[in-house]
Amino acid sequence: MRVDVPPMGEGALIERIAARAKAIGQLPQGFVVAEGIGDDTAVLQVGSHTLLWAADMLVESIHFRLDWIDPASLGWKALAVNLSDIAAMGGAPVGALLSIALAPEYTGTWLDGFTDGLLECARAFGVALLGGDTNRAPRMVIEVSVLGMVEGAPVLRRGAQVGDWILVTGALGASRAGLQALLTGAPNALDLTPHFRPVPRLQAGARARALGATAMMDLSDGLAADLPKLLRASGCGAIIRLSQLPIHPLAHQWATATGADPALFAFLGGEDYELLITAPPEHARRMLEQLPAQTGVALTVIGEVTDTPELWLEHPDGTRTSPPAAGWDHFQAHP
Amino acid sequence: MRVDVPPMGEGALIERIAARAKAIGQLPQGFVVAEGIGDDTAVLQVGSHTLLWAADMLVESIHFRLDWIDPASLGWKALAVNLSDIAAMGGAPVGALLSIALAPEYTGTWLDGFTDGLLECARAFGVALLGGDTNRAPRMVIEVSVLGMVEGAPVLRRGAQVGDWILVTGALGASRAGLQALLTGAPNALDLTPHFRPVPRLQAGARARALGATAMMDLSDGLAADLPKLLRASGCGAIIRLSQLPIHPLAHQWATATGADPALFAFLGGEDYELLITAPPEHARRMLEQLPAQTGVALTVIGEVTDTPELWLEHPDGTRTSPPAAGWDHFQAHP
Repeated sequence: MRVDVPPMGEGALIERIAARAKAIGQLPQGFVVAEGIGDDTAVLQVGSHTLLWAADMLVESIHFRLDWIDPASLGWKALAVNLSDIAAMGGAPVGALLSIALAPEYTGTWLDGFTDGLLECARAFGVALLGGDTNRAPRMVIEVSVLGMVEGAPVLRRGAQVGDWILVTGALGASRAGLQALLTGAPNALDLTPHFRPVPRLQAGARARALGATAMMDLSDGLAADLPKLLRASGCGAIIRLSQLPIHPLAHQWATATGADPALFAFLGGEDYELLITAPPEHARRMLEQLPAQTGVALTVIGEVTDTPELWLEHPDGTRTSPPAAGWDHFQAHP
Repeated sequence: MRVDVPPMGEGALIERIAARAKAIGQLPQGFVVAEGIGDDTAVLQVGSHTLLWAADMLVESIHFRLDWIDPASLGWKALAVNLSDIAAMGGAPVGALLSIALAPEYTGTWLDGFTDGLLECARAFGVALLGGDTNRAPRMVIEVSVLGMVEGAPVLRRGAQVGDWILVTGALGASRAGLQALLTGAPNALDLTPHFRPVPRLQAGARARALGATAMMDLSDGLAADLPKLLRASGCGAIIRLSQLPIHPLAHQWATATGADPALFAFLGGEDYELLITAPPEHARRMLEQLPAQTGVALTVIGEVTDTPELWLEHPDGTRTSPPAAGWDHFQAHP
C-alpha cells in the first residue's frame, strides 16, 4: 500500500478523476455528450432522444449490513437510489443493469429475495432489468446502472439563480433516524421503512421540471452535504430557515428521544432521497399549488438562493449561523 | 449466513436472476428492449438507434491482485473488457461510467495512474468517460458500464447455424500463460502484456458483422467455457480441430516449458478477449480474405457447427473426445 496523499473526501476524488477525463474525440454519428461527470446523471443526446445514465455502488458494511437489512429491501433500495438520480434530472427510467458480487452462501434463497425486491421496485416504476454481471467476493458489492430519458432539457445542478426559492419534496431525517436506531442497537425503536425502502420521486421530479425548476438534485448524503454541491455548481449561496424544514415524524420522534434538535437532525439527514429544487418565486408558487395535488408528494419552501457564496442557517430566534459540518461522505464517515 | 443450496456456477446464477426478471410493462415511447439478459450486452432500440449496454465488475483478489498489476494497466483492462462486449455485438462504443470502491490509501497517485490507464484505453477507442461513483471499501471493486451502438442488427450468440464455420480472431492462451506465470511466482518468465492489457476487437467485430457473421461472442472465460454458451444459445453442437487452434507464442512457450499440451492449454484459455465467430462457409471465406487485411487482426477457422448438442474435440491423430471440463467461473474457480 502506498500512502501518497491524505485520504480525500468523495467530492475531491470525483474532481480528481474528472480533471483527467479530458474531452474525447469523435463519438459515433448522432451521439452528443450533453453532460459528463458532475451531475446526478450523465446526459447523452441520441438522435432526437435525451438519455440519462447513472450508476451507484453499494458496498457491504459501508452502505449496508446484511444482519440489518432483509434481502428484498436491499434489492429495492439498490435500484431505488439509482432511480432517484433519474428523478433528480426530471426524467423517466427505462432500464437497469445489475452487477452483484457475493459469497456462494448467498446465491440461493437470499439472492431470490434480493432479486424479487429489486424487481418489485422495477415494476413499480416501469423499469426493465436488462442484464448485468455476477461475481464472487468475500464482502458483498452491488452495482446498479440505470438508463432513463427526458423529453426536453434535463434539470441540472448548476441552474440555480439568485432570488430563487429553495424547496424540498417530502420530509427529512427519517432514514437517518432509522440508521441511528440500528447503530444504537434499537432496531425496534421506530419504523425502518424509510431507511430500507426509499421512494424515488420520479413523478415529482418530472412535474418540477415541467413547472420551471431551475436546478435540482436528489438528497442522498443529506441536505447539509448536498445543498453546498448545488450552490457550488450554480455559483450562489443560500439561506435556509430551520423553522421551515419539513421534519419527518420519525426524525422528530428520534431526535426528541435522544435530546437532539429535530430541525438540525433533519438538516443533517442522509439517504432521504427527496428532491432539492430551486425555482423563481412565481414558478415555485405554481409548483406549490400543483405538484402535491398531481403527485401526492409534499413540497415545502425552506429558503432562498443568495448572491453570496455562503450557506447560512436561520434559527427560529432569527439568528443566523454557518451550518454545522456534516453529511455523509463515504471516505470520511462510517456508520 | 444462510446456506440454502449448493454454491452455484455463474451461468446458473444469471439464469436464476433472469427467470425472475419477467417482462416489464410499458417503457417510455420510442424505447424497445430488443435483447435482455443473456447476451454479451443488452440491446435497446431508441428511436432509429440501436444501443448496446453492458457492465462488468472486477473484484480485488478474484479478478486482479494489486501486487501484480500496475494501476494504469488495471485502468486499461477495466474498460477494455467492457469494450470487448461491445465488439462481440459488432458495435462501436460511445461512453463509459466508472464506479470504484477503494481504500483511502489508494486515492492519490494510485488513482491517478488508474484513471490515466483507463483514459488511454478510452482515447484509443473513442469512448467518453461520462461519470460514475466513488466509494470506500476494504477490498477494491471496479465496475465499468459501457454504452455502444450498432448500425443495423447486432450479432447475437444464438444465431449459429448447422454447417457454419467457427472462427476466432487473434491467438489464444497468452493471458492464461501470464496468469500461470504470476501464480507460480515467475512474473518475469514471459511477457504479461496480453494478460494486463487486452485489446478489444472492435474493428474486427464490426467487420465480422458486416461480412455476415451469424453468431458472435467474446472469449472472456476461455474457449472451453465460452463456446458451449454460444452453442447452447443456438441449439447446436460443434467440432473443434485442436490442430487448427491459433496458439499464441507465449502460450506455446509456457505450455512447452511446463509440460502441458499447447493446443489444450490454448483451448482452455481465459481472458483472451478474442472474438468467437460463426458464419456460413461462403461468408467465412470472404471474412478470411478481407477481415485480416482491413483490421490487422488474424482470423482462423477452428471447426464447424454440427446438429448434435455435443461439443467434440478432434485431436491431431484424428480421434475425437469430449473436451476437458474447465474454463473460468468466478464461483467455481479461483486463481
